[in-house]
Amino acid sequence: MNEKKIVGEKAVEFIKDGMVVGLGTGTTVYYSIIKLGKLVKEGLNIQGIPTSVQTEELAKQLGIPLVSCNEVEQIDVAIDGADEVNSDLDLIKGGGGALLREKIIAKAANKFIVVATPSKMVGNLGSFQLPVEVAPFGVELTEKHIRKYGINPILRQIEGNPYKTDNGNYIFDCSFPDSLNVKELEEKLNLIPGVVENGLFINMTDIVVSLDDEKNIVLIER
Amino acid sequence: MNEKKIVGEKAVEFIKDGMVVGLGTGTTVYYSIIKLGKLVKEGLNIQGIPTSVQTEELAKQLGIPLVSCNEVEQIDVAIDGADEVNSDLDLIKGGGGALLREKIIAKAANKFIVVATPSKMVGNLGSFQLPVEVAPFGVELTEKHIRKYGINPILRQIEGNPYKTDNGNYIFDCSFPDSLNVKELEEKLNLIPGVVENGLFINMTDIVVSLDDEKNIVLIER
Repeated sequence: MNEKKIVGEKAVEFIKDGMVVGLGTGTTVYYSIIKLGKLVKEGLNIQGIPTSVQTEELAKQLGIPLVSCNEVEQIDVAIDGADEVNSDLDLIKGGGGALLREKIIAKAANKFIVVATPSKMVGNLGSFQLPVEVAPFGVELTEKHIRKYGINPILRQIEGNPYKTDNGNYIFDCSFPDSLNVKELEEKLNLIPGVVENGLFINMTDIVVSLDDEKNIVLIER
Repeated sequence: MNEKKIVGEKAVEFIKDGMVVGLGTGTTVYYSIIKLGKLVKEGLNIQGIPTSVQTEELAKQLGIPLVSCNEVEQIDVAIDGADEVNSDLDLIKGGGGALLREKIIAKAANKFIVVATPSKMVGNLGSFQLPVEVAPFGVELTEKHIRKYGINPILRQIEGNPYKTDNGNYIFDCSFPDSLNVKELEEKLNLIPGVVENGLFINMTDIVVSLDDEKNIVLIER
C-alpha cells in the first residue's frame, strides 16, 4: 500500500467549496495536490497558495487556480507534510528548504493540517536535523551564536557552494541534544540576529492525518 | 559646536592597536570613522567591518583596512549610532535600513559603543518609528500579525515602490503605544514567521557616549 497516497488524499476531505488553501511541499502532500486537481476538474471551486515554486508548477499543471497570499483576506486550510511530528503535534519541517514560506502559510491558516506517514511520528524531535534559515551576511558569527545553545550546525551545501533558499538565504542543518526544550529552542534561535527562521513548528498544527499500527487512517487533533 | 563630531570622535578612544572594529552607519558614527581614518594614517593598525555599503565606501576612501566578518575570530569593539536611546541603554535603530547587519555586528562585538547626541536620549522608546525587516513573501500576512500586538506598521516606500534592504527584504516602520514592554515586543516580533529582524536593540549596549546638560562628554555604562 502507498501510505503517502492514503494519508495525502484523506487530508483533502477538509477542503470545501470556496476555500483558500495553502499547498505545502513534499512527497506526501504531493498526493493531496493531485487529488485536489481531480476535484477541481470535477467542479470544486478553490484558490490555492503554493509554498514553493515546485508546488506552484504542479498545481498549474493540474489546473488548480492559484492566488498570491497578498491578495486574500484569509487562508482557510493549509495542508503540508513534516519531517518529524511528536506527540504534542509539534514539528520539524524544512528539509526541502522552503521552511520560511511554509511557516508563514501555516501560521496564517485557520486550520493547519499535517499529513505524516507513521515513519514521521517520533517521541522526541531531533533525529531529523533541524533546518535554520540564516542571512548570508555574518553567517559565521550567526553560527557561533547557534553553537552556544549546544547545537551543532552544518551549512547545507550543493555542489560545494552554500545552498540558497527561495529567499536568497543559507540553511544550517542542526543536530541538538534531546535535553533541549523545543519551544524554548524555537524562541532562542529566532532571537539571534541573522537567524531568519527555523524549522520548529510549535503549537501550530491543528490536525495530523496518519495511520495507526493496523494501517487505518487516524486523525490526531490537538 | 558640532555635537555629533564631539561624540563621534570620543568613541574612538576605545579603539586600540590590533583590534577588529565594527563600523556603524549614520551621521554621528561618520565622525568616528573619519577620526579612525586619521589614526590609521598615523600608524594605528586595525581591521574594520562595515555595516553598510555606504560605510564600506567611506572607510575605503580613508584607507581603513577592511575585513569580512566571516574572516575574523571576534569583533573587539563596534561603534554605531542610534535613533533613540532610553535610560536602560536600549535602542531603536535601523532608520537607515541597515538594521540586520548592524544588529549582527553589535551582537558579535565584545564591546558595543553607541554614539548619541542628547536629542537621541529619551524616556521611553517609540517616538521614533520602529523599523521591522520582513520577507517580501506573504508581507500582508506578516503585517496582520504585527497589527495584533497593537502596533501600526507602515510599509516603507521609495518612489512608490517598497523600499528594499541590502538583504532584499522590506521594512515596516511601526508606531506602538508606550504601554508595550520593549523587551517582550522584541521577542514577539521575532517569533512572527516573515519577520527577519527588528530595530529594538535590548541589553546589547555596553557604553553610550553622549553630552550632559553643560555639553560635557559623558560615558554612560550599563
